[in-house]
Amino acid sequence: MGGTKKIFVFVLRLLAVAVTVCAAVVMITSSQSSSLFGIPVQAKYQYEPAFKFFVIANAIGSVYSFLVLFLPPKSMLWRLVVALDVVITMLLTSSISAAAAIAYLGKKGNIRAGWLPICGQFPKFCDQGMAALILGLGGVLIYMALLLYAIHTVINPLLL
Amino acid sequence: MGGTKKIFVFVLRLLAVAVTVCAAVVMITSSQSSSLFGIPVQAKYQYEPAFKFFVIANAIGSVYSFLVLFLPPKSMLWRLVVALDVVITMLLTSSISAAAAIAYLGKKGNIRAGWLPICGQFPKFCDQGMAALILGLGGVLIYMALLLYAIHTVINPLLL
Repeated sequence: MGGTKKIFVFVLRLLAVAVTVCAAVVMITSSQSSSLFGIPVQAKYQYEPAFKFFVIANAIGSVYSFLVLFLPPKSMLWRLVVALDVVITMLLTSSISAAAAIAYLGKKGNIRAGWLPICGQFPKFCDQGMAALILGLGGVLIYMALLLYAIHTVINPLLL
Repeated sequence: MGGTKKIFVFVLRLLAVAVTVCAAVVMITSSQSSSLFGIPVQAKYQYEPAFKFFVIANAIGSVYSFLVLFLPPKSMLWRLVVALDVVITMLLTSSISAAAAIAYLGKKGNIRAGWLPICGQFPKFCDQGMAALILGLGGVLIYMALLLYAIHTVINPLLL
């Protein structure tokens, strides 16, 4: 692998740390207070298991991405990194999809199930949740790029 | 790659066809009629976008898994298959997670959001949805195994 390509991969992994940290922080700080018929009500990510999973998955993703940055170039652990990248990509994909399904429900509701949209009541919570999802999606795309690049590099020996 | 290993991978891909087809079919046939205060109500997978996505993703996964079975061993397209496996794994992971988040909501509800559980009203719909999710998870695990095996094989030249 050439020097430019190594820098490119390093920058991608650095970006992965940034977006997964931001995704988790934006979701954590999204809580909003409101009132319904004079009764104070609150929206918090902790109230929805899918959002908790989103925060935990992005936290794990950011710690992993951070640790890989410090792996020495000649380490035997690099063999493990591609396999761990697969696991982290699946973890992030899973958490973003679960959170997106619930966020969509919060926005649109599902009248047939009797589930009303809540974003009218909690616009800040919903906007910030959407921002967190977009950041999370960024993390997934970075890991997808890293995986496809690793496969491309390993399978085509001319690039090694 | 030795003969036994080739057969093992072929069987895994055959299993992937079976479980993705079954996951889609079980979800499609899960509809249930009930009545609420004398008014007929129905639960169908089409009423929930996450379940529609689940059916579409598993249908795509089964067609892809089926086509790969007929790829000649010396085809140049095998280079593409590992990359496509990544994409299909992510697609299946995403669809199962989104459907699971909604299924969990259907089972437990989310009182703070005012979303009541619906599984008491539609037990057959919920049980069959759960069966579809377990089959879908089987598909994800098979693709995860195929990916990790491919990475292991390519990275460790002794196994090639």
